Amino acid sequence: MDPSKHSSINRRVLISSLATLPVLSGTLLPGAALAQAPSVPLLSWNEGTAKHAILDFVRLTTDRSSPSYVAPEERISVFDQDGTLWVEHPMYTQVVYCLERVPAVVEKRPELKDVEPFKTVLSGNREAMARLSTRDLEEILAATLTGMSVEEFNAEVKQWLEAAEDPRWGQHYTELVYQPMLEVLRYLRDNGFKTYIVTGGGQDFVRVYSQQVYGIPPEQVIGTAGGTTFGYDRDGKPFLTKEPKLLLNDDKAGKPEGIHLMVGRRPYAAFGNSNGDREMLEWTGAGTGARLKMLLLHDDPRREYAYGPAQGLHDSKVGTFTQALYDEAKQKGWVVVSMKNDWNEVFPPTTVGRTTR
Amino acid sequence: MDPSKHSSINRRVLISSLATLPVLSGTLLPGAALAQAPSVPLLSWNEGTAKHAILDFVRLTTDRSSPSYVAPEERISVFDQDGTLWVEHPMYTQVVYCLERVPAVVEKRPELKDVEPFKTVLSGNREAMARLSTRDLEEILAATLTGMSVEEFNAEVKQWLEAAEDPRWGQHYTELVYQPMLEVLRYLRDNGFKTYIVTGGGQDFVRVYSQQVYGIPPEQVIGTAGGTTFGYDRDGKPFLTKEPKLLLNDDKAGKPEGIHLMVGRRPYAAFGNSNGDREMLEWTGAGTGARLKMLLLHDDPRREYAYGPAQGLHDSKVGTFTQALYDEAKQKGWVVVSMKNDWNEVFPPTTVGRTTR
Repeated sequence: MDPSKHSSINRRVLISSLATLPVLSGTLLPGAALAQAPSVPLLSWNEGTAKHAILDFVRLTTDRSSPSYVAPEERISVFDQDGTLWVEHPMYTQVVYCLERVPAVVEKRPELKDVEPFKTVLSGNREAMARLSTRDLEEILAATLTGMSVEEFNAEVKQWLEAAEDPRWGQHYTELVYQPMLEVLRYLRDNGFKTYIVTGGGQDFVRVYSQQVYGIPPEQVIGTAGGTTFGYDRDGKPFLTKEPKLLLNDDKAGKPEGIHLMVGRRPYAAFGNSNGDREMLEWTGAGTGARLKMLLLHDDPRREYAYGPAQGLHDSKVGTFTQALYDEAKQKGWVVVSMKNDWNEVFPPTTVGRTTR
Repeated sequence: MDPSKHSSINRRVLISSLATLPVLSGTLLPGAALAQAPSVPLLSWNEGTAKHAILDFVRLTTDRSSPSYVAPEERISVFDQDGTLWVEHPMYTQVVYCLERVPAVVEKRPELKDVEPFKTVLSGNREAMARLSTRDLEEILAATLTGMSVEEFNAEVKQWLEAAEDPRWGQHYTELVYQPMLEVLRYLRDNGFKTYIVTGGGQDFVRVYSQQVYGIPPEQVIGTAGGTTFGYDRDGKPFLTKEPKLLLNDDKAGKPEGIHLMVGRRPYAAFGNSNGDREMLEWTGAGTGARLKMLLLHDDPRREYAYGPAQGLHDSKVGTFTQALYDEAKQKGWVVVSMKNDWNEVFPPTTVGRTTR
């Protein structure tokens, strides 16, 4: 399942050793970097159109003498997660989670052992896994994301995040967040904006780490959401079970629909990186006054990845950013951020310091 | 539709005259009372078990030396609305709204004029309206709450709330909120708690006035919610249409399910007044540490209404509070608030001053 499982053992040992050094203690998570960030805003952004669009937007919406002044309670900003706040290539982290959870699920439900698609996932045959259909994947998602209490699910995700590592960088997934975006989150909050995540990923999954990693509380995470069912255990104690019933498909048109459901206000700032964010940016841009609409272009194969318009990787299953979206952005004056040119750092200093290759 | 329509004309004239007096200007809404409330907490509460349960809970959860101390970001409190924050008898305000919107809907859709149940509602025959089935009511709710853009809906509700009056008191519905509960909301917020409304009523309906009336922003209103559909108008401008598709039935077991969907944390304090709030209080009470669970008993026919256990009105369609719920409350140590004995005021001073009978 984890293609690096065998090759990364030495890296893991090395990282464990590094982690015990006193100088690094307490700085292992981006949250720590966030807390220690200097008060100069957007330090990891190079001077240019993108950085100044953010600074101008905040000035226009928070200066009381500005015609675009926005009352503090109206200051809502929304951020896609995968590919906007953290790495999404080569596979969405939550999909990695679901695949890696299959052995534990089969242990509890041995009848699935010889049944597809679980049999293929257990085989570890990556070519066969790459051929799994959408329906197969949905079955895996349902088996690994539903059927347990909300507390059990939270504990399972937390445990996995503390152990799992991205194969390219040998880092925890929660460390592969974009330092410039952490700075935007912080800068907007320092100026009275509420920051929301609006993700096609699972709402309950992201809520497990959103506070620690992004400083965003669970109630400000909007994601693809399934229903729960209220019930009682043998002692009469109530609990909620996660059900395989889709309430909100928080992608594309589902993003503005999800924002209406969960917030009930139109955002003033929206950040995305793919066609899944198009409607959210359109909805944000259709409001009056100053509205910030930004799309992150992954054009930095050295420090991260290159995909999207004129970058290759067009057939990728994640982060589709078509030429049509790029053209719409240019036509409507949305800001396209170049990872390569606009960011002088990609990852937090604590992550960079621990990256082993 | 409005049984007081004819008899209340003189009252309305009187109120209009009163409203023009300078001494009352700016004090017509509870929000004003809220802003001017003194800093002594819970002034409208008589000394007794209920008041002290609230004071003790706040001390236990906010004193850093207390074993029940709760971190500020975890301080979530939830409030039912109908019968807990404002009057629900003899009919839920939102149902009154839907019935009174029927003429406007029929004007736009004349084909409904001679079709049931709209024909009956238009007739104004109250006996016939009382016999409408649940299915009839659902049809009326769908016709009056869906099919328009979210902005159109907000404008329609706002306009109605500014004009409509409760027949008993001759007051706007938003003025018939409970002063002691406004004080609880404020006291909890002053102590770092986020206050949420968790209502069986319509989420979009309550969000129109929640900030002004309760100081609760729309994103902290959880209610029965329908889906919306994202689309574009002729000029390519995006908008959201309210659809007759139920996403969340926020009553009974739907309340803890709705809290999980919208907040993702278990509340520390929950306030209700009926069997519809039972699961929410159970879910709150099943958490560790200090948790406040309160039920309001309507036992004050002189100042408001009397219903619930041993109060008569047992067959009422609103605010069902069975003996079984009362027994569960006593057994689990939930606090039952007596409107008659625990509250020295029911409505805000500005409302009381303008009540004409």
